[in-house]
Amino acid sequence: MSVRKNERVPQLRIALAQLNPTVGDLTGNADLIVDAVRQAAAAGAHVVVCSEMALTGYPVEDLALRQTFTSAARQTLTDLAARLDAEGTGDVLTVVGYLDDQDGPRNAAGALWRGEVVARQFKHHLPNYGVFDERRWFKSGDELTVLRFHGVDIGMVICEDLWQDGGPIAALGEAGVDVIVSPNASPYERNKDDVRIELAGRRAAEAGAPLVYCNQVGGQDDLVFDGGSFIVDPSGTALATAEQFVSKVLVADLELTAGTGHRSGTFAGVNVQRKVLADEPLPAYEKITNPQVQPLSDEAEVWSALVLGLRDYVRKNGFSSVILGFSGGIDSAVCAALAVDALGPENVHGVSMPSKYSSEHSRTDAEELAKRLGCPFRVQPIADMVHTYVDQLGLEGLAEENVQARVRGVLLMALSNSEGHLVLATGNKTEIAVGYSTIYGDAVGAFAPIKDVFKTHVWQLARWRNAEAERRGEVPPIPENSITKPPSAELRPGQLDTDSLPDYALLDDILDDYVEGDRGYADLVAAGFDPDVIDRVVRMVDIAEYKRRQYPPGTKITFKAFGRDRRLPITNRWREHH
Amino acid sequence: MSVRKNERVPQLRIALAQLNPTVGDLTGNADLIVDAVRQAAAAGAHVVVCSEMALTGYPVEDLALRQTFTSAARQTLTDLAARLDAEGTGDVLTVVGYLDDQDGPRNAAGALWRGEVVARQFKHHLPNYGVFDERRWFKSGDELTVLRFHGVDIGMVICEDLWQDGGPIAALGEAGVDVIVSPNASPYERNKDDVRIELAGRRAAEAGAPLVYCNQVGGQDDLVFDGGSFIVDPSGTALATAEQFVSKVLVADLELTAGTGHRSGTFAGVNVQRKVLADEPLPAYEKITNPQVQPLSDEAEVWSALVLGLRDYVRKNGFSSVILGFSGGIDSAVCAALAVDALGPENVHGVSMPSKYSSEHSRTDAEELAKRLGCPFRVQPIADMVHTYVDQLGLEGLAEENVQARVRGVLLMALSNSEGHLVLATGNKTEIAVGYSTIYGDAVGAFAPIKDVFKTHVWQLARWRNAEAERRGEVPPIPENSITKPPSAELRPGQLDTDSLPDYALLDDILDDYVEGDRGYADLVAAGFDPDVIDRVVRMVDIAEYKRRQYPPGTKITFKAFGRDRRLPITNRWREHH
Repeated sequence: MSVRKNERVPQLRIALAQLNPTVGDLTGNADLIVDAVRQAAAAGAHVVVCSEMALTGYPVEDLALRQTFTSAARQTLTDLAARLDAEGTGDVLTVVGYLDDQDGPRNAAGALWRGEVVARQFKHHLPNYGVFDERRWFKSGDELTVLRFHGVDIGMVICEDLWQDGGPIAALGEAGVDVIVSPNASPYERNKDDVRIELAGRRAAEAGAPLVYCNQVGGQDDLVFDGGSFIVDPSGTALATAEQFVSKVLVADLELTAGTGHRSGTFAGVNVQRKVLADEPLPAYEKITNPQVQPLSDEAEVWSALVLGLRDYVRKNGFSSVILGFSGGIDSAVCAALAVDALGPENVHGVSMPSKYSSEHSRTDAEELAKRLGCPFRVQPIADMVHTYVDQLGLEGLAEENVQARVRGVLLMALSNSEGHLVLATGNKTEIAVGYSTIYGDAVGAFAPIKDVFKTHVWQLARWRNAEAERRGEVPPIPENSITKPPSAELRPGQLDTDSLPDYALLDDILDDYVEGDRGYADLVAAGFDPDVIDRVVRMVDIAEYKRRQYPPGTKITFKAFGRDRRLPITNRWREHH
Repeated sequence: MSVRKNERVPQLRIALAQLNPTVGDLTGNADLIVDAVRQAAAAGAHVVVCSEMALTGYPVEDLALRQTFTSAARQTLTDLAARLDAEGTGDVLTVVGYLDDQDGPRNAAGALWRGEVVARQFKHHLPNYGVFDERRWFKSGDELTVLRFHGVDIGMVICEDLWQDGGPIAALGEAGVDVIVSPNASPYERNKDDVRIELAGRRAAEAGAPLVYCNQVGGQDDLVFDGGSFIVDPSGTALATAEQFVSKVLVADLELTAGTGHRSGTFAGVNVQRKVLADEPLPAYEKITNPQVQPLSDEAEVWSALVLGLRDYVRKNGFSSVILGFSGGIDSAVCAALAVDALGPENVHGVSMPSKYSSEHSRTDAEELAKRLGCPFRVQPIADMVHTYVDQLGLEGLAEENVQARVRGVLLMALSNSEGHLVLATGNKTEIAVGYSTIYGDAVGAFAPIKDVFKTHVWQLARWRNAEAERRGEVPPIPENSITKPPSAELRPGQLDTDSLPDYALLDDILDDYVEGDRGYADLVAAGFDPDVIDRVVRMVDIAEYKRRQYPPGTKITFKAFGRDRRLPITNRWREHH
């Protein structure tokens, strides 16, 4: 930590541009940034901080390996600097996450000022776990640039560089810095926002300077970024906070303790360079009140994540409407309610597809759902289609059950082809875990809104959403009977999920340990589960991997989502056992 | 390079255990190794070298992160050492690739001798590109162990450590070593075997010692390992070579130039430790003639790769038979011929599923294919099923076309459910690239044998396979008409692929540049392609990503296969353009 001497209290107004970029859309993303800087400048901000790779969207995956894309990204940054200047906002120091092609692809942040790219900061620590493959895509940086701007020394660190002990933060702490700005693209996970702010506070303390954390917002395939950007001081106090799940330009005033004795050189193994843009502190001005938002409840947070993930998948892929089966059950009801919140009732098309095994309540509950949501609804019985297969092929048992689910899949795809709606798959995490779904049947869809939501959690969200409607004086969207009745696939007479599966509360408990916790047999026994039930559940999970590989993407909300988070071989003879 | 002085010429008989392990099957894989060591010992071998992670199979993917699995793998290695000793083969020095849990998961090789694990070598360089994610799974090693055995200094390096300049090989060269043994799991790619032997020869020269390269054989999901193990001397001469695509214990004699002045210490930045197991050279014995195999032709190599990849996917996942649609076209004919070569004709079930748009030749060519292959065959017309959808939903155009493909998918799945056959999808790389297939229709299947074979290559393989049959005096499996007729999906009257797609020769040329080469628009124009055709093809490839995500796995044979090799976002607005 550098020796500091208080001289005066320089001020700085910082805007956090919490934007929703689209991967690959360099022009559109640049437009978003120009607009945010215009807003920020109008609010008197001196510095704008964008999120990680805001110019390209994040994650770009193997686009990082395409030379045309990396050079276009770098060129777009140069053009953006000129454009901001032409727009009259060139005096605002704008830090923009982008993709650089200098000596291998780089996850980079560019500082734009007066029409020029005045500094480029490369990310040091490249996460390569969970959903991240950054060592596949990027070369790591090993230097830091500190910019002196209006008498304040500004350090820049990108996302993972905050999460790793030592490295950039330790170096900035030793070299001396007055404020750190940090572009991030941190995917949503339940409870992760609490972790972020606590961690960032610790890093602010290590650096001895406030930390400005700007996070991406928006959905990108199976990830959703929640925003929730903030500024935290070295005592761990949040000085300003932004909403989650909305695009937002958060403007806040900082009164900084400008240090002296700040140095260039090598600190904590990192070369720290300094560049002076403007040495003189700003003339004193009147402070604004920094915005602070109330954190969302757990259910509100998850619901918002699912709504945004769904909306952005649909819209960013050029669709405006969705279609899904309304079975009368809880999963399709929650998916429909999410879709209505995401896209509006007129863009959600429900189809009841009763078979000869369908209960009366499956039809009435589906109809009731459509009525409550106010969305287009139709009934398409599947009896004739099923009959032709069963009759021609002489099907019975499982083959007959699956044909019903598959006819529904074909039917939805036919309506999608005819009418241009995107098909939603309504499976939940529990059934996807144990393979309790029909591939090419109920698994049909371009997107699966509740793919990462365990069954017991689906019920919890349904109850919360209905209560929320009541609180607002609106009609609760989900029929009570869909919440309370025993779940059934209704593929044979009197069938119940509990015929094939343990009780959902127990099943979700085991899955939480086995899938989320990656625990082995002995741990599961020690947790008190019945050995036979463990064997059965673990085996079901293991042999369903081939189905999961062909399942559509859905929004990650847990620590370990199926898909890029949990990568197991299909061909796999390892079994947890006694 | 160490200073060397020839003293005498120690001999050593080395066996390369080119085995086909199954991922996760610790017991079964240990059995394979015990059996190979027994064979090797019977042939008088002193050293056995297994492939990379032979005990666990490769790649284990996220099983490496499961603590129960890593500790079981390490325990199995200890047990294997004891078992080899109990079997009377403990005097053979056996180098086995395995997964170690010491201080983080390690991609490791264990040296087993006289009932003990006498050394553990960790992999230094962890590949994290292409199909590899080893930085996700493993911690890298930073030391080398050299074993003195019968007067010979044996170094060990694992797979990628050979491919990287400097590092382990440079260290062994400086420290001094008489022979290097290298466990590998190098997935098949066209022409890669030539690259391997040339590279290994260069490394042998750098180390001043022969290099013993043992590669895994067998299919694992979308990868197939081709074996083709070899020994190469510092002049680049192959001293012994094994067949590709078969399990094999290759036994060869080496006459080694035992060096003196070999040292422990730090060389090329790597700590080299030495351990003496047996100092005295072996008494002189009569040399055997080292086996040498003729390389396969390009077509024979690819065909064998596809056969083995298919066979292992089916069998390792507990199936014995497959079912697929016989359309009369080239793709299904080649898939059927591959399946018959992989599983035998009695295990390949062909189904002709004619619609009202099917040509007469589609039926007769399908029947002819079945006759030539000698496999079970049936006809299931789809008219009645299609009619119920079209009629009830009032379908036309694309929706009607897709229903036909989807009815076939449901039909095959129903037969699969009833009879227990695994369904094969027959799509080729060209159509998967441009999205010229129906999701949940012809894309239905657990495995796609020619997923990574471009259309023009499919024809080439068909001609080769027929010629090969003629050469052997057998019936050519593929009807000539299926090879020569213009390709058509037959989903509407008179439809031809060329209605929607450029000529396949041109299309495959563009795809080779765009998909394999990751080239941008300017490069494609410079290569002489028509700008409008480029635009059309690139757009088709880009927007078909969502279909590819739900496509079944298939054997990788090219540099860049769809799937884990080419990871692009679905939501992606980047377009190569003028």
